[in-house]
Amino acid sequence: MNERIKEILSWYGSDNPGTRTNLARLLSHGKLGGTGRLVILPVDQGFEHGPARSFAPNPPGYDPHYHFELAIEAGCNAYAAPLGFLEGGVTRYAGQIPLILKLNNHDVLHDDKDPLPAVTGSVRDALRLGCSAIGYTIYPGSSHCVQMYEQLRAIAEEAKASGLAVVVWSYPRGSALSKEGETAMDVVAYAAQIAAQLGAHVIKVKLPTAHLEQAAAKKVYEAEQIPIKTLSERVRHVVQSSFAGRRIVIFSGGAKSDDKNVFEEARAIRDGGGFGSIIGRNSFQRPKPEAIKFLRTVMGIYAGEIP
Amino acid sequence: MNERIKEILSWYGSDNPGTRTNLARLLSHGKLGGTGRLVILPVDQGFEHGPARSFAPNPPGYDPHYHFELAIEAGCNAYAAPLGFLEGGVTRYAGQIPLILKLNNHDVLHDDKDPLPAVTGSVRDALRLGCSAIGYTIYPGSSHCVQMYEQLRAIAEEAKASGLAVVVWSYPRGSALSKEGETAMDVVAYAAQIAAQLGAHVIKVKLPTAHLEQAAAKKVYEAEQIPIKTLSERVRHVVQSSFAGRRIVIFSGGAKSDDKNVFEEARAIRDGGGFGSIIGRNSFQRPKPEAIKFLRTVMGIYAGEIP
Amino acid sequence: MNERIKEILSWYGSDNPGTRTNLARLLSHGKLGGTGRLVILPVDQGFEHGPARSFAPNPPGYDPHYHFELAIEAGCNAYAAPLGFLEGGVTRYAGQIPLILKLNNHDVLHDDKDPLPAVTGSVRDALRLGCSAIGYTIYPGSSHCVQMYEQLRAIAEEAKASGLAVVVWSYPRGSALSKEGETAMDVVAYAAQIAAQLGAHVIKVKLPTAHLEQAAAKKVYEAEQIPIKTLSERVRHVVQSSFAGRRIVIFSGGAKSDDKNVFEEARAIRDGGGFGSIIGRNSFQRPKPEAIKFLRTVMGIYAGEIP
Amino acid sequence: MNERIKEILSWYGSDNPGTRTNLARLLSHGKLGGTGRLVILPVDQGFEHGPARSFAPNPPGYDPHYHFELAIEAGCNAYAAPLGFLEGGVTRYAGQIPLILKLNNHDVLHDDKDPLPAVTGSVRDALRLGCSAIGYTIYPGSSHCVQMYEQLRAIAEEAKASGLAVVVWSYPRGSALSKEGETAMDVVAYAAQIAAQLGAHVIKVKLPTAHLEQAAAKKVYEAEQIPIKTLSERVRHVVQSSFAGRRIVIFSGGAKSDDKNVFEEARAIRDGGGFGSIIGRNSFQRPKPEAIKFLRTVMGIYAGEIP
Amino acid sequence: MNERIKEILSWYGSDNPGTRTNLARLLSHGKLGGTGRLVILPVDQGFEHGPARSFAPNPPGYDPHYHFELAIEAGCNAYAAPLGFLEGGVTRYAGQIPLILKLNNHDVLHDDKDPLPAVTGSVRDALRLGCSAIGYTIYPGSSHCVQMYEQLRAIAEEAKASGLAVVVWSYPRGSALSKEGETAMDVVAYAAQIAAQLGAHVIKVKLPTAHLEQAAAKKVYEAEQIPIKTLSERVRHVVQSSFAGRRIVIFSGGAKSDDKNVFEEARAIRDGGGFGSIIGRNSFQRPKPEAIKFLRTVMGIYAGEIP
Repeated sequence: MNERIKEILSWYGSDNPGTRTNLARLLSHGKLGGTGRLVILPVDQGFEHGPARSFAPNPPGYDPHYHFELAIEAGCNAYAAPLGFLEGGVTRYAGQIPLILKLNNHDVLHDDKDPLPAVTGSVRDALRLGCSAIGYTIYPGSSHCVQMYEQLRAIAEEAKASGLAVVVWSYPRGSALSKEGETAMDVVAYAAQIAAQLGAHVIKVKLPTAHLEQAAAKKVYEAEQIPIKTLSERVRHVVQSSFAGRRIVIFSGGAKSDDKNVFEEARAIRDGGGFGSIIGRNSFQRPKPEAIKFLRTVMGIYAGEIP
Repeated sequence: MNERIKEILSWYGSDNPGTRTNLARLLSHGKLGGTGRLVILPVDQGFEHGPARSFAPNPPGYDPHYHFELAIEAGCNAYAAPLGFLEGGVTRYAGQIPLILKLNNHDVLHDDKDPLPAVTGSVRDALRLGCSAIGYTIYPGSSHCVQMYEQLRAIAEEAKASGLAVVVWSYPRGSALSKEGETAMDVVAYAAQIAAQLGAHVIKVKLPTAHLEQAAAKKVYEAEQIPIKTLSERVRHVVQSSFAGRRIVIFSGGAKSDDKNVFEEARAIRDGGGFGSIIGRNSFQRPKPEAIKFLRTVMGIYAGEIP
Repeated sequence: MNERIKEILSWYGSDNPGTRTNLARLLSHGKLGGTGRLVILPVDQGFEHGPARSFAPNPPGYDPHYHFELAIEAGCNAYAAPLGFLEGGVTRYAGQIPLILKLNNHDVLHDDKDPLPAVTGSVRDALRLGCSAIGYTIYPGSSHCVQMYEQLRAIAEEAKASGLAVVVWSYPRGSALSKEGETAMDVVAYAAQIAAQLGAHVIKVKLPTAHLEQAAAKKVYEAEQIPIKTLSERVRHVVQSSFAGRRIVIFSGGAKSDDKNVFEEARAIRDGGGFGSIIGRNSFQRPKPEAIKFLRTVMGIYAGEIP
Repeated sequence: MNERIKEILSWYGSDNPGTRTNLARLLSHGKLGGTGRLVILPVDQGFEHGPARSFAPNPPGYDPHYHFELAIEAGCNAYAAPLGFLEGGVTRYAGQIPLILKLNNHDVLHDDKDPLPAVTGSVRDALRLGCSAIGYTIYPGSSHCVQMYEQLRAIAEEAKASGLAVVVWSYPRGSALSKEGETAMDVVAYAAQIAAQLGAHVIKVKLPTAHLEQAAAKKVYEAEQIPIKTLSERVRHVVQSSFAGRRIVIFSGGAKSDDKNVFEEARAIRDGGGFGSIIGRNSFQRPKPEAIKFLRTVMGIYAGEIP
Repeated sequence: MNERIKEILSWYGSDNPGTRTNLARLLSHGKLGGTGRLVILPVDQGFEHGPARSFAPNPPGYDPHYHFELAIEAGCNAYAAPLGFLEGGVTRYAGQIPLILKLNNHDVLHDDKDPLPAVTGSVRDALRLGCSAIGYTIYPGSSHCVQMYEQLRAIAEEAKASGLAVVVWSYPRGSALSKEGETAMDVVAYAAQIAAQLGAHVIKVKLPTAHLEQAAAKKVYEAEQIPIKTLSERVRHVVQSSFAGRRIVIFSGGAKSDDKNVFEEARAIRDGGGFGSIIGRNSFQRPKPEAIKFLRTVMGIYAGEIP
């Protein structure tokens, strides 16, 4: 284990050795293993957006085996999915890649301005499936945020006692926020901070824009002249807002987009001190060989092999 | 242990020796140890107001280690923070200062006229992190007050059985109160009383103004000519409303303010029989050397070394 | 133990000996011990109305010790208060007077036409504090009545299994009732019946007026010519409505009032077969010597020493 | 993951994916990772034989850090030790090698013809320390065997539900066996079978001699002409007795011995279809560089690099 | 907190911050606070030997308050006693000295060659009494050792999860050992190792003689020429046997003895790298002023102030 990984683990000094072992697994696996950077494949869109929207662009993705293979062959650090998708393939691929069981999920058959995901798995499930971490989504800004935070508290306590790592998707959303506000600089930084304060080991947020949503925050950003003009600066500010870089922060790729954009974003994340990406639709919605090539390019950027 | 500390502990005669030991720790540590006065550093603003509003004025504050160091170097009696901030540094600073785990928190990404904080930690967390006390916020006046009181009841019962002390932030707020009413004399005194009746060992309220909010109360204040003109008189009335001084009452510093004001307030708290201050933004939002000098001045006022 | 106490205890034949022992303690202590009558000191007004409204008229009342002393020196049968007030003095006065822990409380910082008190203590608290009974308030007529009745059910079940007595404050209130209706004859009798049916050992109601609130009830009162003209007749009807006198029913004194009125009411309670009074503000809002003299007069009336 | 490892994992089809993941970890780590062979470093001799007998020949072994380093540097598949030795170093080496928490241990300060080890750790300990497996010793032939089997049953049930692998040390011993019988062919094969029937994933036995202990068994061995003349044949028979090779069987190295013997034994294990060795005293009782060279030679034999 | 204390705490890296905080308390209190050495006052002799044998030589010792005062006034690091003795004084002295609740005890009204102490307190007791650690005695060599080890395992797991430290008295005794063997070099080193492997944070053993009890061990001591001639060498070997000095080992004073002997022993413990003494009878069986002078001399030796 190299010094960078040891340094990252040292930030989690209050955690038990089991949790640190599982964090080490996430950081040591795949093409980026040992670099301190991560690229994770998440596939919860079947639940979150529906199967056709998720998998029709690349029909092999309807098959749970497909995503295990994609993540393994591409050399991702980990694969994250809900209970069913993991159960649907884990036996065949057990031990081949660290797994993250996403413990809550939300569908859009009943959508809501103030969403509340359902808890769809348990820490016991994560242990029996051999996962290294549990994943949990919070929607700061939702009127149901109290319920989400309290569920996460209980789940994280159990996960940590069981030696698992806790990955929190922190996505601002709800009646209190404008659409633009969901990715506003101040709001994303705040969402990262909330996840960190709730005890997340790994924090996942969206890439922020330069928009500032909350008046009281805007005043401070302007008075203190916090640099947020470039994406790289904004990433740096999110990392700073996650305990001055003492927590792993990764960024989601979002909807399918032009490859050049994704690569530019990866560079900005890298240069801003971010720890990596969690890339779903941009990878599994294209044929596997292309997806692997695409993911390898992103990894190459993080590894510094591609400028 | 001097007579003053023994006298204070004697007020908690129905508590078990574990809780009294932890109260003794809070009262014995730091520059004010043994004086019966306390200055506590609380840093929950990252959660409550967001990271930039909290830490941009003094960026080292983004780092959880910073606040442990500030509290230790300044000689505070204790450091209070949510789960994440404690987990982020406790291993390095274990045993160097009494800790208070703030067990509920509220963010302003979804704010509400009638706020309800989320429970973000547990008594078991407080034990495993080596805390001396748990902290809990109630908002008397909120339509959710019943839920908060009942959560506090259950948490306090468990904390007391485990030998921990219970610190209650009692902040009137909600649709039943005017903005001015939140710091009205009658309302703050009432909030202190409610915290005491709920079994708090240490009560934290805001400094009250001379405003009287509730008609029925106003009649009594006028009829009985309760002296509330000076800040010192109002502090005395809050202390009286906290079981005639048989409970430790401390006052929050509020938003960043002119130093002279803070010192004047400390003098008023001291002269009115208050037990001390819990000072967050006024201390951690300036460079550490200045913060230490500032906190030492406040402590000097409480210790009677500065008139 | 005299025959009257044995007779009263015989009404509680389905209760375990522990509960009967604690009922015997309430009936055997103080100046009225052994008479079958009770005068109880309740001090929950600090929580229910706020500290200044409660204690400013007689400032020693801010101190939790004061009320223990008042109840003991006056020779009351018991002292009833919320958690904080009991914890604040119980160690010093343990064993000197039967205690009733009031397990739910309501404040007026957030008031409501349909009030729901918060549960602020537990049966475990009552045991560890050495109480003889728990107290619980229901508001028949509130839209939250189901929640209150169900909480009471669970608490009473636990209290009885632990050998404690159950005292129910039954105060009609809520959007379903007119202000006048809260003390209407039919409504108060109904409230007493509900408390008795919920398993209360001791029922506390307000003194009823001759007003009849509910049309269906009014028809019966008039058809059957139930005598309710004098206060004494109305008391007799409440006692009758509490299982034909097989439950202890006591009456609250209400807001501070002219002494002569209170004595007249005590005579009416006595003559109507009521079991006594629970007198808070009329006693603790005057200097202790006067309060003791006042309480002794009420006790004298119940004891038949004063006509 | 290569075909051999997948084949081995396929034998454990009734186990949950978590257990299979942890078996995969044992089979994938270190110099022999992926070969289907294992060399494990066990250090429980401090407890089993005392510190001086164990560590005086190579005093750095008194230090719990030493054995983590030895196992990691030599490229062992796993390191197995009791609670104290794991707790004494795990934080520093978390994530660097699969760990096996030995859950029961026996000392010789009170020895017994019919030994009963004490349970000295728990499955919860194994999870919080980040272990891949728990280890447990049974002594078939001891009068306490029922207690050991039943303890193992309960522990294995919990371990498997938690996704851990179960390694059973099966050492015939007790008043029912002669000294020679403890390593008799029939007895060792029987011990392996018992461990397999009790649900062990990995079975550890001593190398058997050609002696046959039990008359009824001897008759069959002779009638059926089971080939047990060479060590390699005897290993093959043990593997056969462990569900026809569907369970991983490894062999213990025993007391310090001539290196050539150990290498010969490794060849016999390899050629007889055994899965590897668990080598304690022969490795940690010599200076680290020599130990590493020694272990590498054993691994080379298993890997087929050394004939 | 100085570097030595931080170094000692670093050995307990697998423990949670709560346990490390309580270890820090033991190491930071009293005259030796911060030196890395400890002198602890244990008073369990009233239970273990009877009251007259224990307290008649200095009758104030019958009073539980006496020992709190002795430990506090002498500046001991901690005071250790069974439930009753702690309950008998803890409220008065809460917060004045770290406490160790001895959770099992043995009396000699029914003695046994193979003793089994009774569990006489719980981890919950330790929390409610405000203790920093629990104490537990094992008798390696007793035929009941399995039961003791297993009780300790369960108690230590609960204590560690609750943030307490675990102190193990490891006293070889039982039918398997000669009287001389109980303090034999090999046996004491073995007893220290067993306590460490069972997860003790602090180990207490008797000072060993140069006698070697077990034949198998003797052979090794002689072959490896382990230096054990002087007491200081033997202490060094015990420290080595306790994870190469990564566990705190302290030595018991034994029966009342000549002061010069005790001082000589303290010098040998200090020079051999031992961490201190736990001195009962030699301190509390003489008048308090003499006891304090005596304990201060021992502390002076450990502090290096007395050569």
